[in-house]
This record gives sequence, structure tokens and C-alpha cells, in this order.
Amino acid sequence: MEIGFIGLGLMGRPLALHLAKAGHALHLWARRPASLEPFKDSAATCHASPAAVAAHAEVVFTMVADAPDVEEVCFGVDGLDGGARPGLIVADMSTIAPAAAQGIGARWAARHVEFLDAPVSGGEVGAINAALTIMVGGKPEAFERVRPLFETMGKSVNLIGGSGAGQVAKACNQILVSVTVTAVAEALNFAKKSGVDPAKVREALLGGFAYSRILELHGQRMLARNFKPGFKSWMQQKDLRIVMEEAHRLGLALPSAAAVAQMFNAMVGSGFGEDDTSGVLKLLEKMSGPD
Amino acid sequence: MEIGFIGLGLMGRPLALHLAKAGHALHLWARRPASLEPFKDSAATCHASPAAVAAHAEVVFTMVADAPDVEEVCFGVDGLDGGARPGLIVADMSTIAPAAAQGIGARWAARHVEFLDAPVSGGEVGAINAALTIMVGGKPEAFERVRPLFETMGKSVNLIGGSGAGQVAKACNQILVSVTVTAVAEALNFAKKSGVDPAKVREALLGGFAYSRILELHGQRMLARNFKPGFKSWMQQKDLRIVMEEAHRLGLALPSAAAVAQMFNAMVGSGFGEDDTSGVLKLLEKMSGPD
Repeated sequence: MEIGFIGLGLMGRPLALHLAKAGHALHLWARRPASLEPFKDSAATCHASPAAVAAHAEVVFTMVADAPDVEEVCFGVDGLDGGARPGLIVADMSTIAPAAAQGIGARWAARHVEFLDAPVSGGEVGAINAALTIMVGGKPEAFERVRPLFETMGKSVNLIGGSGAGQVAKACNQILVSVTVTAVAEALNFAKKSGVDPAKVREALLGGFAYSRILELHGQRMLARNFKPGFKSWMQQKDLRIVMEEAHRLGLALPSAAAVAQMFNAMVGSGFGEDDTSGVLKLLEKMSGPD
Repeated sequence: MEIGFIGLGLMGRPLALHLAKAGHALHLWARRPASLEPFKDSAATCHASPAAVAAHAEVVFTMVADAPDVEEVCFGVDGLDGGARPGLIVADMSTIAPAAAQGIGARWAARHVEFLDAPVSGGEVGAINAALTIMVGGKPEAFERVRPLFETMGKSVNLIGGSGAGQVAKACNQILVSVTVTAVAEALNFAKKSGVDPAKVREALLGGFAYSRILELHGQRMLARNFKPGFKSWMQQKDLRIVMEEAHRLGLALPSAAAVAQMFNAMVGSGFGEDDTSGVLKLLEKMSGPD
């Protein structure tokens, strides 16, 4: 298939490479030419603008930082809409606000282009291993056409609902992972400051109701003091901003997520923004002083 | 073995029955004679006081509500210490504050009686199925003598550390389960209020980093609106009081647990105290108004 891909960063690059390896013809554009380097041996054509990418593709994926970036790529100068023909599908894999995704979807619908919001969870390692969870919002027919491509990039591909529903599921995911990683850090710090071996506590708790993948994986990172990302704390902060803005818009209380959003503000303010989210343990330690 | 058991409530009764079934001679005392009914066909002797129980037993288990109850049974009028001989082991399976457990342990040590704090997780179902996680603090030799009895009652038996360490692990467990159940309720309520099917969100998230046993089991309870305990919210409130008092004593910040402790205060205040902790969803719904 003729596939466009825009946003060849840490997450986008391995995903585009999976599509190339599966035999698809890639059409690429990148702000920085260096981003195109890894594709010089594959069946990829580099173009001068997103508009040119859209003109050659049946499906275009975008994987950028935030809503303004998606809007720029879609509707900015020489944006995708400059080359888009009716029937094109644009699938945005970035994490942005559900309301923003719905707005972008509506703009595309007016141009007879299908838009899918398709954020992912699983991080860079998940992207490299094609093991992502992909959460999709949009029309079922468009989803079914793109599903084989999603399955090239992830191991769990889910149509959640209509436009924006993928971003809602991603927001729910970010509530759960950020709150759980903070609770794990609080529990292990509580054990240590109580004079008890946090490794023994974690081991005992893994067998019961307290089990979570975060306790298993990020709990182990905390014990090993391995705070290399993984998923960076400044990105968690950004995703929690989206969550809390949506909660404000919906008139919804999220008490545990709200406390945790403050922690990730403080992570960035404390200079821990580049650390994995499990580094929230360091912030708790800093708050509670020496042992 | 000659075993004493005091505290034959929802949790204690099935545990004592496991010990009887394993062929041990039980020595019982209960405030209410009705509590002794289930034991009338087993090799159990009923006594007139905790002191009499202690006089006949090598190991005495207690499973009561809170620290003052443990202290009353141990050191009150006709308490265990009235009949305890040097070498007796008292194993308290109640959930109480770590500092209180250490204090009780020290009082017993002065009388040459070994004390183990051995709180459990897994609830009434875990007790009935002998599937509890048991977290033990105390001396290794005393633990090894009681271990076969613990293994009759639980499937995961862990010596965490010295006196009080079992209660520290239990407090960590309560931080994790209460915060996770609240985060799951927040995420599912967020999905629903966003117009997205919470069942589809849960299903998609179970496959990724957001997986927890709480998302699986309590998430399903929330979808089915089955708030029958399980673990009652007023007991979660009590356990979080212990956690927050310890945090105060240690000078320790627990931001997510603190937010969740307020939610469980409000659960009880809202008349949801008898509901399972997954009922925290109802409180969030009440806070955010009609759909």
C-alpha cells in the first residue's frame, strides 16, 4: 500500500520501519533531513512537504508532540490538506486532547477525508518490538481499512468508539499508569523510612490484590534505582495536563490523578523531567528528607 | 499442636476452621458464645478467658479489629498474659499500626513470650479459600515454628523483617490497593462522562502497562455495579487512618494516598461504608453530577 508517515522521532521511526519491512511503499516528509537517514535503504520516497506526501498516499500516519503540531501538519502551510484527495485516511498516533482530536476529525470530515485518532501505549520499547497497545477512535469502516497496518505496529489494536474515543482511552491509561507509579513509589518509600526492606515488601505484595505491572516493572526499577527512560516524566506531565484540562471541561473530579499531576509538575521543576516516571521516588525522598 | 485462637469473626472463623481441619487441638474464647457455634463438632475446647486459652496453648492467634482490642486481649483483665508461660508465641493477624505492634511485641518480650505481627491480605474469600497473603514481622525462629500453621491459612507466607515489619508491609499493601481502586474508578468515570464505553476502555487497557489485578477484578465489579463486599469501605478508611498516622509520625508525604484517604472518609460520610471499596465509583459519580 502507498503509506505516508510524518513524525519520525523516537516513536515514529520504528513504526515507519515496521511498515517498510512489511513491504509497503512509504512516503515521507520530515522537518529535519537527518530523520530520513534510517530509510535510505528502504522503499521510501522523500517529499518536499506534507501536501506532497498526502498526494501520493492512501493512508497517512502522524506521530508528533501535541495538538498544535497535528494541526500544523494537517492544515498548516503546505499541510496534508494541500494534497489530500477524498477517500484519504489520516491516522494520528500522537497523544492529544480528545476535544482537539474531535475538532481535527470534523475539519477532515468536511473535506471527505477520514480521520482516526490512534494514540498508543507501550513506549519506545513497545514501538521497537511492534508490541504497542493502539487505542482508536473513528468510523468502523476506516478502522477496518487501517487495521492491518496497525497490526504491523502493535500487538493489541482496539476500536474504542467514535472520533476522540482513542484519546479518551489513552487519557484513562495515563491516569492509571501515573497514579499507580506514584502509589508504588509512596509504598516503597514508606517501607524504607519505616526501616523495612522495600524489596521484601514488593515481593510479598506481588502475589496479592496489590499486583500491577507497574509494581512489577517500575517497582523493580525503583529498587535498582534505574531511572533511565522508559517514559519520560516531562511527557507524563504533558499527558496529565491533557487529562486535567479534560476533567475541567467535563466538570469532573479526579482526586488521585490531581495529586499525581502536582507531583509531575514538581518532577519537572526539580530537574527530574528527563527521568523515567519511576523517578517520582526521588521526589518523595527529597520531600521526606534523609533516612 | 495445641493452638489458641481469639477473634472468631468473618476473617478469624474460617482461619480457625482450617487449623482444626488440619488436626490441631484448638483452644477458644469468645466474647459472644454464638461465635463458638461453628466449632462444636471439631476438636476445640472453649475456655472462660484468654488467660485460660494461653495456659493450654503453644501458639495463640488473635484476629481482632484494632490495636486497643489486641492490647485488651493480651494484657487486659484475664488477658493472655494471665496464663502465658515463657516460650509461648502470640501471632496477631489483625491490621494495626506498626508502632502499636512494636509496642505490644516489646511488652511480650519482657515476659519471654514471642510476638509476631502477621496481618493478611485477600479478604474473607481469601480466608475461606486459605489463599491469604500473610506478612510477618518478628524473630526468624518464632516465624519458622509458626510457618506451617500460617501455610494452613494462606498461600503466600512472608517474613518481611523484625517486629512491626508485617504491619509495615500491610500498610504498603493498603496504599497500593486503595489508590489503585480509586484510580480505576476515576478512569472508568472519565471514560463514561466522555461518552465512551468504559468496558471497551478497560478491555484495551488490560493488555498494557495499566494492568493491575484491581483493574481486572474491581474494574469488572464497577462495570457490573456489584458493590457487595469484598472489602468494606469503612475498613479501608480505618486502614488508611493507620497509614496516614504513620506517615505523620515518620514525617513522610504520601500525596496519592492522602487524596484517597479523603475519598474513603467521604465514602463513610456518604453512607457507602458497607460497600466494597470499588463503590468509590459511586462517590465520584455523585461528585460529578448526572451524565
